[in-house]
Amino acid sequence: HLAEKDNIGIVGLPLNKGQPREGVNAGPSIIRGQGLINSVEALGYHVKDYGDMKFSSLEFDTIGSGVKNPRTIGKAMGEISTMVRGVVEGDGVCVALGGDHSIALGTIHGHMQVNNNACVLWIDAHADLNTPKTSPSGNFHGMPLSFILRELEGDVKQLKDAYEEWAWLKPCLSAKDIAYIGLRDVDAGEQYLMKKLGIKYFCMYEIDKYGISYCLNQALKAVNPQMDRPIHLSYDIDSLDPVYAVSTGTPVMGGLTFREGCFIAEEIAATNMLSVLDMVEVNPELTDIAGGELTANCASKIILSCLGSRIV
Amino acid sequence: HLAEKDNIGIVGLPLNKGQPREGVNAGPSIIRGQGLINSVEALGYHVKDYGDMKFSSLEFDTIGSGVKNPRTIGKAMGEISTMVRGVVEGDGVCVALGGDHSIALGTIHGHMQVNNNACVLWIDAHADLNTPKTSPSGNFHGMPLSFILRELEGDVKQLKDAYEEWAWLKPCLSAKDIAYIGLRDVDAGEQYLMKKLGIKYFCMYEIDKYGISYCLNQALKAVNPQMDRPIHLSYDIDSLDPVYAVSTGTPVMGGLTFREGCFIAEEIAATNMLSVLDMVEVNPELTDIAGGELTANCASKIILSCLGSRIV
Amino acid sequence: HLAEKDNIGIVGLPLNKGQPREGVNAGPSIIRGQGLINSVEALGYHVKDYGDMKFSSLEFDTIGSGVKNPRTIGKAMGEISTMVRGVVEGDGVCVALGGDHSIALGTIHGHMQVNNNACVLWIDAHADLNTPKTSPSGNFHGMPLSFILRELEGDVKQLKDAYEEWAWLKPCLSAKDIAYIGLRDVDAGEQYLMKKLGIKYFCMYEIDKYGISYCLNQALKAVNPQMDRPIHLSYDIDSLDPVYAVSTGTPVMGGLTFREGCFIAEEIAATNMLSVLDMVEVNPELTDIAGGELTANCASKIILSCLGSRIV
Ligand SMILES: [Mn+2]
Ligand SMILES: [Mn+2]
Ligand SMILES: [Mn+2]
Ligand SMILES: [Mn+2]
Ligand SMILES: [Mn+2]
Ligand SMILES: [Mn+2]
Repeated sequence: HLAEKDNIGIVGLPLNKGQPREGVNAGPSIIRGQGLINSVEALGYHVKDYGDMKFSSLEFDTIGSGVKNPRTIGKAMGEISTMVRGVVEGDGVCVALGGDHSIALGTIHGHMQVNNNACVLWIDAHADLNTPKTSPSGNFHGMPLSFILRELEGDVKQLKDAYEEWAWLKPCLSAKDIAYIGLRDVDAGEQYLMKKLGIKYFCMYEIDKYGISYCLNQALKAVNPQMDRPIHLSYDIDSLDPVYAVSTGTPVMGGLTFREGCFIAEEIAATNMLSVLDMVEVNPELTDIAGGELTANCASKIILSCLGSRIV
Repeated sequence: HLAEKDNIGIVGLPLNKGQPREGVNAGPSIIRGQGLINSVEALGYHVKDYGDMKFSSLEFDTIGSGVKNPRTIGKAMGEISTMVRGVVEGDGVCVALGGDHSIALGTIHGHMQVNNNACVLWIDAHADLNTPKTSPSGNFHGMPLSFILRELEGDVKQLKDAYEEWAWLKPCLSAKDIAYIGLRDVDAGEQYLMKKLGIKYFCMYEIDKYGISYCLNQALKAVNPQMDRPIHLSYDIDSLDPVYAVSTGTPVMGGLTFREGCFIAEEIAATNMLSVLDMVEVNPELTDIAGGELTANCASKIILSCLGSRIV
Repeated sequence: HLAEKDNIGIVGLPLNKGQPREGVNAGPSIIRGQGLINSVEALGYHVKDYGDMKFSSLEFDTIGSGVKNPRTIGKAMGEISTMVRGVVEGDGVCVALGGDHSIALGTIHGHMQVNNNACVLWIDAHADLNTPKTSPSGNFHGMPLSFILRELEGDVKQLKDAYEEWAWLKPCLSAKDIAYIGLRDVDAGEQYLMKKLGIKYFCMYEIDKYGISYCLNQALKAVNPQMDRPIHLSYDIDSLDPVYAVSTGTPVMGGLTFREGCFIAEEIAATNMLSVLDMVEVNPELTDIAGGELTANCASKIILSCLGSRIV
């Protein structure tokens, strides 16, 4: 993890098949365009840039077992897992630039093949915990966590059994190893699952009541009490308020301020345990150019803060 | 109150004669247009929609004893009081959609005919405590509290005596039973009255210093220490910062964030003591369509949070 | 200082040679245009308006020893120092309207000729501590503190020795007598100097972690533990988030909210120790008219709060 290595691997994952809007595949390029690689190097790291992965769109792939593009996504997830596994093995720390939040299934799976005791912090307006059965939309970017959780193996079995592209997947994370921050739009099925599985969460209510510092601290305490586990930070830019992250597919009012978003990042950096960082759902094609740049700039600054950039 | 009843009565009060701008009479319809009734029903309540009241504009009604439109307003207030009394008697909980903040005189009066031990939380950038003598403008939406307070009966007597439309009014609330949250634009006469009467208040300074959670808690403690009194929550949308509530008649910089606005609502819901809710001063005609929708959406979400809507 | 005098002197310092953008010289007039003088008088003070100083642009003045316009600035600083010294001697309290932040070298110097035990609170996104050698730009508005600090006398000696316009300057402040609030864009050389000199600072991270009230309190405790020293409050409007202070030369995302900006001002007023206030970097020519007015309105409200204006 971050404390032990001087290397950082960066990989672009321009997947957009987990949701219906074009443009989120341009996330890696607009984030890179903020000068990301140079800035990370300026922090003192040796950066290995793995470029952007290419994902093939499979034919005859519409909707299966409640999921849109099931074969395309299954194949891409397997490839992402292999890639991220290699990056973590090789460089210790991996920064994955989405793409939609689907990619986190692949990055977490790949990460845990190396660090099987990693814990997950999920910064998001949404819980992304739907199963194919509970999903109101069939968009996979609202489901990645249900596919990685051991407790929900049975709920996703039908889809996995239906397509050979999913044969590689074995759930490898427990519900007690996830904590949410920033939730404010959670589907009924997700609410049910969160309570049933006892997943730790901090909605905007808790952040307003206790402050971001306390909430983040409690989230870390829940999943990483000895601070000896590698951290997988899965950062959906829509966790930020639409005032800042205006160019994203599913914005929700009342989000984190940019300051809170950076604060989380600075605190994670201070743990020295960051191992994999996903930065997802930057979609520069949903607003004017300034909106896309603003959103990408937020993403870029948060990535740098996660990697130890400080004001003083 | 909310804990004891499964019924909620909703009534529109499109009054705009308490201030000079057209458009606040469209408040009920744009808030309803957010899908309010369906959303309240989805929370599990049986909703009785009383529609929108119609108020007549009386002739020969310009300015009297320092108040604009005194006869029209006096008549409307009496009718609102009767209506809200009926709703609270029949349904237990009443949601009143303004209209300008004048309506609160009618809703509080009607409410207290049923629950004479109700307390009032006034969420507003303004104190709305002017008497006809102290008001710089003569707009009644800046005066409703002076007409309901026992301590100020003498200060409003001249107006009441001058018009038969005010004959119904008997002050029924004490200053110790009100607490303000969100103040940031208070007239000199109001400052004097607040201090003289010892009304509890939390300006933006206190919210910045102690946090919204502590301030709300202290406000509730002041007016409802045993949490056994029905709560009348009078919510002026201009309590929110103009970034969110852009389409309102008297916006003031430096207001509550949308998150704080929702936090107040969630905490009030958690008391199980909400009895009447006023949501006022949404005026969709002051900005472009997007501004009106944003403001109404804030109002709608806050109403739902007051009624128990939660993220998880 | 504020507690002992009923007089306030106000002086405009329309200097713009400390940075490259035209328009910051219009700061005094747009802030005055908010009705500042009348509003200060309404607070109960006797206001002496010294008008706006006029600064001459010296010929043959381009870049010298790493500073742009060194002779023009040196001369202006000496004149500002003399002016502010006179105002503080005569009226006790001085409000200086910039102009760029260069002016603070003059105002602090002048102030300390009268109150040699004054302390400095520097509210800014930037540290303005570069020396001519560390400055990446050569713009003097990023350097004023290095010229006033005793510890850095040697670092600025080359420039001072090169031009007779700087002969008047003798450093008179120690690093332990400054505290920063609001930092979020600090140059590498400044970071080095801040740590070397042990200057107290509160970046946005600390404000998010501990709250503005605690941070301000600690800042005051560091420089004014007995609260017996006159306070020089040097307020760069770019400390505010660009959402509020949009019309300023070097905006940086993630700044103070307008509420936090006012909170600082109200707390400083409550100390009764404010002696000199700089309000700088309002540049109405960088945006549309509304943006300039908004920025100037923030500045005006903060000035009034510094002088004791309260909501209730
Ligand atoms: Mn997500
Ligand atoms: Mn999301
Ligand atoms: Mn009001
Ligand atoms: Mn109001
Ligand atoms: Mn500055
Ligand atoms: Mn600055």
